[in-house]
Amino acid sequence: MFTSRQIHLASRPTGLPTHDNFKTVEQELPELQHGQVLVKNAWLSVDPYMRPRMIDRKSYIAPLQLNEVIEGGAIGEVIASNNTQFPVGTQVSNLAGWCTTFISDGTDLTPLPASDLPAHLFLGMLGMTGLTAWAGLNKVIQLNADDTVFVSAASGAVGSIACQIAKLKGCKVVASVGSDEKAQWVKSLGVDAVINYKTVDNLTEALKQAAPEGIDVYFENVGGEHLEAALNVMNDYGRISVCGMIANYNAETPQPGPSNLFFINSKKLTVQGFIVIDYFEHYPEFLAQMTEWMQAGKITSEVTIYEGLDQTVDAFLGLFSGKNKGKMLVKL
Amino acid sequence: MFTSRQIHLASRPTGLPTHDNFKTVEQELPELQHGQVLVKNAWLSVDPYMRPRMIDRKSYIAPLQLNEVIEGGAIGEVIASNNTQFPVGTQVSNLAGWCTTFISDGTDLTPLPASDLPAHLFLGMLGMTGLTAWAGLNKVIQLNADDTVFVSAASGAVGSIACQIAKLKGCKVVASVGSDEKAQWVKSLGVDAVINYKTVDNLTEALKQAAPEGIDVYFENVGGEHLEAALNVMNDYGRISVCGMIANYNAETPQPGPSNLFFINSKKLTVQGFIVIDYFEHYPEFLAQMTEWMQAGKITSEVTIYEGLDQTVDAFLGLFSGKNKGKMLVKL
Repeated sequence: MFTSRQIHLASRPTGLPTHDNFKTVEQELPELQHGQVLVKNAWLSVDPYMRPRMIDRKSYIAPLQLNEVIEGGAIGEVIASNNTQFPVGTQVSNLAGWCTTFISDGTDLTPLPASDLPAHLFLGMLGMTGLTAWAGLNKVIQLNADDTVFVSAASGAVGSIACQIAKLKGCKVVASVGSDEKAQWVKSLGVDAVINYKTVDNLTEALKQAAPEGIDVYFENVGGEHLEAALNVMNDYGRISVCGMIANYNAETPQPGPSNLFFINSKKLTVQGFIVIDYFEHYPEFLAQMTEWMQAGKITSEVTIYEGLDQTVDAFLGLFSGKNKGKMLVKL
Repeated sequence: MFTSRQIHLASRPTGLPTHDNFKTVEQELPELQHGQVLVKNAWLSVDPYMRPRMIDRKSYIAPLQLNEVIEGGAIGEVIASNNTQFPVGTQVSNLAGWCTTFISDGTDLTPLPASDLPAHLFLGMLGMTGLTAWAGLNKVIQLNADDTVFVSAASGAVGSIACQIAKLKGCKVVASVGSDEKAQWVKSLGVDAVINYKTVDNLTEALKQAAPEGIDVYFENVGGEHLEAALNVMNDYGRISVCGMIANYNAETPQPGPSNLFFINSKKLTVQGFIVIDYFEHYPEFLAQMTEWMQAGKITSEVTIYEGLDQTVDAFLGLFSGKNKGKMLVKL
């Protein structure tokens, strides 16, 4: 008999979640049935999109259920198997979420590609995170070498990869981050200009200074003032790829949007929202491209690691206070 | 010698314009030079987009200049000519704006197509107004027969044509207007459900009731609460064609945008702004289609006519208090 330690949603948060919204549960796992495998997770992903899933409303995926495990991406290893497709030792990515072990019939498991790369990369740069950045720039909109690109939350998991992909495409890239230390790091990725939005008086003016030629593409991770500033400096026919709007995820009351949305009309902008699951079909193309860039040393992955299931909630909350550089992970 | 009576921008309005922002000027016109023609306008167009042009800021067209004639669409007749391309009697559409007569070298004149149709239709349903509605539904986004379409400002010049085009395409159409009388008229155009937004408690609930299946396409003329309600009821992968945002044109201070822009992300929406001048290449296709519909009695044009140049400012201001059904015109 195995025990699974799991983190459940204990109550729906209002505003910024607290530890009280979560509870750790130990669950005895039953015997494996025919076709089932037992997976022991090694890495858990914590992501901003999990916060809106804690609200009880219809969205692109069902809301997280109370008193059930927080679903999310993870990487684990098959440690017992009644399924010939997944022999013991198979490394699998899965969506089982915040738990140490779980039983699966295999339908929700994806074996990792054979490689010498660290497994956790398949939660980050080579996984959904990387695919989000890549698809958001190459499939949702079509990035061109002559585009000036603005990436917000540029030190985050997706943002830091988006910056690098845009640079590899030949674009000028302007980025915004929330600390001088992060600014230095993002600059070291080759980004042309980095703005610490917390220390500038006026984000619009800072963007104008960084990109006097205007912005052609905005990779939107933040919303609110970032979107307003971007709209102010967008060029005609600019494209906005809307990956997320983290500024609003913890708002206790709805926050008003920018007052300059008329620029969508007068500047003939395209604003396109997307969710990465719609781009899974491109995963092979993405993986080939990213692996090539990695092996050539052209793209780097930064990870921030918390250790142990008991750190998972802290890791998650850390996303909203900017504790991560690059991908935030929990190592079990 | 001819005298041109013209309406000039006397000062830049703050909020809703008043008569003080305009002045009537009489100007003696010089003798015609070689290649020039004298045009006497018969019809002037007044349009919501003229209001943002009164602000001194960079946009898709230069701001209107102080102490110069208010530019805009007009239809006139050549009454004296030193240009063999435009003999006396030629009816021309032009952008000379709010003036009785003007001199042109012909480069800014477009002869009306030969037809028995009333000339003013080429300012309305068969002109820029109609092309705006048609392109906004067929070129900016691609309307499909199975779309449920929401049109705001549906009793306006563009909105009333957009409703009819969407119905001809086979769509279910929901419309919003600002009075019960307009609602009745728009209903008579074949629209499935019409909401008087001034009398409903909650526009979102009214839309849900009118389209329990959700909205696939929003033809955006208004902004503000209309956009917020539309975002609330949009289906996944919905498309928003942003033609204008009249709710904000007269705001003295910037009005905050909707607080639910995150739906662009989570519902994977496309929001596409456009300006009709980018779709002029499609004019022949548009004209053929619209003329066919007109001749088959499938589409109708409503016009609201003010008489005389001195009524032009009232006609223009009337756009913002909903004085027009269909296209607002001034007959000289």
